[in-house]
Amino acid sequence: MKIAKTIAEMKELRRQMPQKVGFVPTMGYLHEGHITLVRLAKSENGAAVVSIFVNPTQFGPKEDFEKYPRNTERDIAMLSAVGTDVVFMPEPKEMYPPKFNSWVTVEGITERLEGASRPGHFRGVTTVVNKLFNIVEPTKAYFGQKDAQQALVIQKMVADLNMNLQVVVVPTVREPDGLAMSSRNIYLSTEERRGAPVLWKSLELAQKLWNNGQRNGEQIRREMIDLIEDEPLARIDYVSVADTESLHELKEMKRPPLVSLAVWFGKTRLIDNKVLEDPA
Amino acid sequence: MKIAKTIAEMKELRRQMPQKVGFVPTMGYLHEGHITLVRLAKSENGAAVVSIFVNPTQFGPKEDFEKYPRNTERDIAMLSAVGTDVVFMPEPKEMYPPKFNSWVTVEGITERLEGASRPGHFRGVTTVVNKLFNIVEPTKAYFGQKDAQQALVIQKMVADLNMNLQVVVVPTVREPDGLAMSSRNIYLSTEERRGAPVLWKSLELAQKLWNNGQRNGEQIRREMIDLIEDEPLARIDYVSVADTESLHELKEMKRPPLVSLAVWFGKTRLIDNKVLEDPA
Repeated sequence: MKIAKTIAEMKELRRQMPQKVGFVPTMGYLHEGHITLVRLAKSENGAAVVSIFVNPTQFGPKEDFEKYPRNTERDIAMLSAVGTDVVFMPEPKEMYPPKFNSWVTVEGITERLEGASRPGHFRGVTTVVNKLFNIVEPTKAYFGQKDAQQALVIQKMVADLNMNLQVVVVPTVREPDGLAMSSRNIYLSTEERRGAPVLWKSLELAQKLWNNGQRNGEQIRREMIDLIEDEPLARIDYVSVADTESLHELKEMKRPPLVSLAVWFGKTRLIDNKVLEDPA
Repeated sequence: MKIAKTIAEMKELRRQMPQKVGFVPTMGYLHEGHITLVRLAKSENGAAVVSIFVNPTQFGPKEDFEKYPRNTERDIAMLSAVGTDVVFMPEPKEMYPPKFNSWVTVEGITERLEGASRPGHFRGVTTVVNKLFNIVEPTKAYFGQKDAQQALVIQKMVADLNMNLQVVVVPTVREPDGLAMSSRNIYLSTEERRGAPVLWKSLELAQKLWNNGQRNGEQIRREMIDLIEDEPLARIDYVSVADTESLHELKEMKRPPLVSLAVWFGKTRLIDNKVLEDPA
């Protein structure tokens, strides 16, 4: 496994790789969710590149950029173990040199949900991912469904800007009690961790309501909120029942919606989502 | 010479081309300036792709998008004559389908000069050029020095977003009386055409003042303005003596500046510029 720390090194390593490359952009502090993406990248393309970069431009001024968990040694060991070919680990000043001044934005769908709660977040995401795609030139890039809106935004950017790769969205990997895997789960106290599966429970409730014929988005939201509010440590940021493409909130529904939510546990903000499914 | 009208066709033709491709993005209505770029693209890379696309997103609502001159038949004949390999001629709805919502912006240098006179202009330019670079995947792309700020903005975008090509800026081609070649020159009446070389004359004056030791940007501007105002049909939009990188206006200068200007003749807006040179 090779490690590139500069853009020039990464581009040079890419030139030496076979034509097909699968790419997994990460912020490190890897968990089984990331590793699932890397395994898929490797098996579908023959070669896998993983980036580890805690991207400062996607964090708000009051967010957790400084304290975002980092453990590069462990990350490298995990990536090596699953046959990663190249790890790209640039410093912030390599990606954002002085006088850096170019931005990629996706309008519309970025204004809702995470974009509404975290102004500027998606501009940071699309800009860094655009750069990473140009640096790594992957055949396919892999994103987790856990960040459902991010996956939609990246797909929109790739389509609108005619970028030459395929975006693959992979189902969320969960703990046995349903909690979506996330690097931020490490922030949770024992009590918070015990309450955190309420996100997944509320999504399962939404699916159950859908199965029972509930087609009113507001009703689904209300019952989810009631469930979450029974968990004393949970503080809701948003609960959304939205169109899977436009992310507009839905009242009466014909097709299964994207149900998503963000919930604070103390100083930790957790997100999760589910595209509801029609019963088989 | 092959012609691609859709993005898919262009990408397919690109796959069949040799590795090195020179690319010249144009808005058509070609003149000797464009042809100079195409000849260079062909000779430096072995293959040349030219796009003809009057890009709606770089025109303001009161600008000349609708009446911008078009003559596709003549353009194709000219491009064929100089050995162009592929002409890419998409319709606006091919480049901007419904729900198109992604934008590339360069901040800072786009706020001055043309950007100040034409709000939103450079967002349209960077977005379409970003798309075209992804569609054509050129080794080198060629731009005229006549649009000096545009060339700087494109170079900044390519550097900041780590795009995989080289931007080549080619000296302005001029009529015998010094008027910079431009598709918009066709708009000029006989009288306006007679007065239009005053742009170039004012740039030559700036060079003469520099040669004589003038290092005060405001003085150079003042003398240029006096010269242009002697031309009764000319109406100045701006005259600028600026740093060649930041485009900040300069008072006392140590290095040769970029001198640039925009001047109206009736309803036609002409631009020109010169990076002053130290005497040999």
